[in-house]
Amino acid sequence: MMDRVFSGMRPTGKLHLGHMAGALANWVKLQEDHECYYCVVDWHALMSDYADSSMLRDNCREILLDWLAVGLDPDKCTIFVQSHVKEHAELSLALSMVTPLGWLERNPTYKDQILNLQNKDLSTYAFLGYPVLMAADILLYKATKVPVGEDQSAHLELSREIARRFNYYFGEVFPEPQALHTSTPKIPGTDGRKMSKSYGNSLNIADEPAVLWDKLKTMMTDPARYRRTDPGDPDKCPVWDLQKFFNHDAAEMEELAHGCRTAGIGCIDCKKKLFRHVEEVMTPIQERRRRLEEHQDMLNEIVQEGAKKARSTALVTMEEVYGAVGMLR
Amino acid sequence: MMDRVFSGMRPTGKLHLGHMAGALANWVKLQEDHECYYCVVDWHALMSDYADSSMLRDNCREILLDWLAVGLDPDKCTIFVQSHVKEHAELSLALSMVTPLGWLERNPTYKDQILNLQNKDLSTYAFLGYPVLMAADILLYKATKVPVGEDQSAHLELSREIARRFNYYFGEVFPEPQALHTSTPKIPGTDGRKMSKSYGNSLNIADEPAVLWDKLKTMMTDPARYRRTDPGDPDKCPVWDLQKFFNHDAAEMEELAHGCRTAGIGCIDCKKKLFRHVEEVMTPIQERRRRLEEHQDMLNEIVQEGAKKARSTALVTMEEVYGAVGMLR
Repeated sequence: MMDRVFSGMRPTGKLHLGHMAGALANWVKLQEDHECYYCVVDWHALMSDYADSSMLRDNCREILLDWLAVGLDPDKCTIFVQSHVKEHAELSLALSMVTPLGWLERNPTYKDQILNLQNKDLSTYAFLGYPVLMAADILLYKATKVPVGEDQSAHLELSREIARRFNYYFGEVFPEPQALHTSTPKIPGTDGRKMSKSYGNSLNIADEPAVLWDKLKTMMTDPARYRRTDPGDPDKCPVWDLQKFFNHDAAEMEELAHGCRTAGIGCIDCKKKLFRHVEEVMTPIQERRRRLEEHQDMLNEIVQEGAKKARSTALVTMEEVYGAVGMLR
Repeated sequence: MMDRVFSGMRPTGKLHLGHMAGALANWVKLQEDHECYYCVVDWHALMSDYADSSMLRDNCREILLDWLAVGLDPDKCTIFVQSHVKEHAELSLALSMVTPLGWLERNPTYKDQILNLQNKDLSTYAFLGYPVLMAADILLYKATKVPVGEDQSAHLELSREIARRFNYYFGEVFPEPQALHTSTPKIPGTDGRKMSKSYGNSLNIADEPAVLWDKLKTMMTDPARYRRTDPGDPDKCPVWDLQKFFNHDAAEMEELAHGCRTAGIGCIDCKKKLFRHVEEVMTPIQERRRRLEEHQDMLNEIVQEGAKKARSTALVTMEEVYGAVGMLR
């Protein structure tokens, strides 16, 4: 039987090339030989953005456009919005019955996030319980594989513990989901740090070529190369990390590295070459994105259809849950 | 417009005459001139009984039989099971976004219950949040009136605060439910204390006449009346409280009180008279109960129909919630 994969993303704005080269590239691969459920987790976004939810709807649309643009294919995977499948809330409630408060209070990520997001009041009941909702997201589809970044391992472990505890009380309903650690290329932002919306250093999937070029033009390079005549070191250059992802022309890469090391070329020359490859990759993606943007009815249809598919799986699980718990039907 | 009433009961076993004379008698009256939603809150029961949920299904059936037997009329009110309407879980999740943890941690009833139910492990995420689910129960139907006992006022106040806070963030969606304080007759148990399943002193609605008589026969009376020849004081006699509820024959009541005070009659004489009246009241109730018990399909149909009616109201509220929050539909 095909492994079931669940993964979700919080709709908090446009996605960038870091998402594309990391999580989304993996998702696109996984849809080929796994039964994949990809979920826009809008309830999770609302947890942190309840004080101003005015962007929620648009953010959901943007993220869906980004997903479809980079190649998630509704014929190969199930693409849907969390709140369109009521069973997420329902299973979350069921799992909350057996989740000890201490597990949530001691969750290290919880404490970190409260500290990191000091401009938001996250001391709500929902936020304390986000690992419960996350467990519900995964277990609702009995996903056996969950692609996770290093920093999310603790969450998945909590989901596994919640599954175990439910199974202990009510019988073996849920498989324990396993982490799917996948390699992700290094995609730095324009300032050389990790690409991140909150750093304001990101190249977005939806950025027009002119915008991309503007950002690339001023992107940080090897900090030791002050002058055009200084030799550079590609291994210390964030632009080179992008070359490695976008530029598959081995001869050109060789030439660029040599030019950099010998000060034979300037950074702007290297960036121009990079931009050609970025444009080549991004043009069809952006065309797809634009087409969907102009046909919102198509987007709606995809999402409705996705919710229907997701719900049909979710309902089977919930019937099993009601039965195991012994609820009156 | 008719006031909307919501009330719920946890299915934890057969109901007794205290329930019948108290909450249920009020519910039966309210259904005449209010739009009433009466809900078997099975998720709330599961919160405390998750460690052994084997009785949950039967308990739901029993409570429904009791309700219908005492006169709740599915043509006049909406009778349903909480878990049959997924929107309870959904609205609970939505409300949890804006519910400060501190409100729940400081909830005095929460601390009391943890202390009172030391044989159960209630330190779960669900149990901390039961006022949120309770708020969802009420607000889902935009109930404006909630019949509450004295001890539940704090809960309703929390529901009102949660409603206010949701309205503050997302606009005026919910009316603030008002408490409906209704008088309840004093119905002591066989040991003179408040009738309660946990005291093992209760006369159940479903008890056969022979069982009721067995319990009444040995019921505590005025503790000062040691011997048959001692005069008694009806005002200090728990049996007299039952007389006041069941016996509407003023002349007989006069006679019994006099007989007690003068030691003209024994307690057993008084109990025999009481039993005649209890039987008179309970016989049609128990007949109705038996008929429904023998026709589980009728019971099922009533509950399915109730869920359908409840859901149609719940859906209207949820559409408003999605709109107010700004979720993608």
